[in-house]
Amino acid sequence: MEMGEVVLVGAGPGDPGLLTIRGLEELRRADVVLYDRLAPRELLNQVPSGVELVPVGKAPGRHSLSQDEINNLLVGYASQGLRVVRLKGGDPYVFGRGEEECLHVIARGLPCRVVPGVPSFVGAGAYGGIPLAGRGFASSFAVATGRLAAEKGDHVLDYSAMLRAVDQLVVLMGVGSLESILSQAEAARGPRHPAAVVMDATLPSQRILVGTVSSLRRASREGAVRPPAVLFVGRGVEWGERLWRTGAVSYY
Amino acid sequence: MEMGEVVLVGAGPGDPGLLTIRGLEELRRADVVLYDRLAPRELLNQVPSGVELVPVGKAPGRHSLSQDEINNLLVGYASQGLRVVRLKGGDPYVFGRGEEECLHVIARGLPCRVVPGVPSFVGAGAYGGIPLAGRGFASSFAVATGRLAAEKGDHVLDYSAMLRAVDQLVVLMGVGSLESILSQAEAARGPRHPAAVVMDATLPSQRILVGTVSSLRRASREGAVRPPAVLFVGRGVEWGERLWRTGAVSYY
Repeated sequence: MEMGEVVLVGAGPGDPGLLTIRGLEELRRADVVLYDRLAPRELLNQVPSGVELVPVGKAPGRHSLSQDEINNLLVGYASQGLRVVRLKGGDPYVFGRGEEECLHVIARGLPCRVVPGVPSFVGAGAYGGIPLAGRGFASSFAVATGRLAAEKGDHVLDYSAMLRAVDQLVVLMGVGSLESILSQAEAARGPRHPAAVVMDATLPSQRILVGTVSSLRRASREGAVRPPAVLFVGRGVEWGERLWRTGAVSYY
Repeated sequence: MEMGEVVLVGAGPGDPGLLTIRGLEELRRADVVLYDRLAPRELLNQVPSGVELVPVGKAPGRHSLSQDEINNLLVGYASQGLRVVRLKGGDPYVFGRGEEECLHVIARGLPCRVVPGVPSFVGAGAYGGIPLAGRGFASSFAVATGRLAAEKGDHVLDYSAMLRAVDQLVVLMGVGSLESILSQAEAARGPRHPAAVVMDATLPSQRILVGTVSSLRRASREGAVRPPAVLFVGRGVEWGERLWRTGAVSYY
């Protein structure tokens, strides 16, 4: 029997056209595809008919399969000599747990490769008109999860310290703790510092809220922010009106 | 005459298979393509014959065309009703000056869209076996340029403060100032903290240097680090041996 393998494929931020050429090639020669809730559904149409499609979708707070179960599924299929594609939203190594899955597969003597993807925050920047780094407005940026704040109390991650050390801050999975994060941002930058939230980044349903750290706190309290959403704090937000962006824009 | 337009396309980190599907579509219907030194040459084979290919390559320190000249070229071609693709290494909004070019085009009444790409550091992480963020090792990371340090003195950017505020640090374009950056990293994390450099990320010539902030300073002094190179400081480096990675690996 031929040896199976696992290929972690970053599906990109949502627009199916933002999958890489290599990622598409891997999908087209897969024997089985395990896919996340955030991986674009349209991409599954690229998989040859007869190939098994296995949803292992994780939504915040409710895991349809545990990480251990996913790891074991990957090894189980690859052990049967199958070419397993693990399709993940964004990039596998940016809060994607790709390293845990690859480690598990390789530790059991099976090959595991990685095809990187456009991270959600990079897609949100491009389609939202928010440059991440460049001359005159940002020599550095930080990317952080907002999930720990919600799960473990507000002071596990110090967003205020991040905003003192870098020019811009991007927070992923931060909807549940947005007020706390923006309050820390206000402590570092003052209430009128520019901020924006991009929801459903790169999808036809994309919506952008543009304002300040103070006004977006209000938007958050009013329930205007829904996941999936990427928060940007920094002067890159100020470019938005003069650059290309898609979807509805609301000013706060 | 039909109205022209400019499309900024992120070509990804180097492996031509890491261009997005949308980026490939844009290349195939371009009337003229302006490309960077870091955009993969193989991608130009995808451009229909007869289409004008214009190198505007920037190498560190020597600009074959100034940014103003590039901006004016983009507007000039689009004003003739042409569909202009501007192909850039990595992502246009991550130190790619895409915002400057799009602003210039839009300010002159012409449309400009952006197709994001896999940033070089994301490709370097995937092909180098260095996860950027995940459970247990990194809830946050910072991305910074190393170029300002070399151009304007060592203390323009405070890499030490970044490493106190986030879990991992990625530095792009930092070869010329690597010793200074690693010295600041040592101040924040101590000499034995893990660090790695990925050169020619995602290309067949990829090489990885793995060590500590202290040992990589030595490697830098010995001339072992050449551009283009991505520096990683943080515990994500420790995953490398147990994950997939490509190219030659040297330990320091």
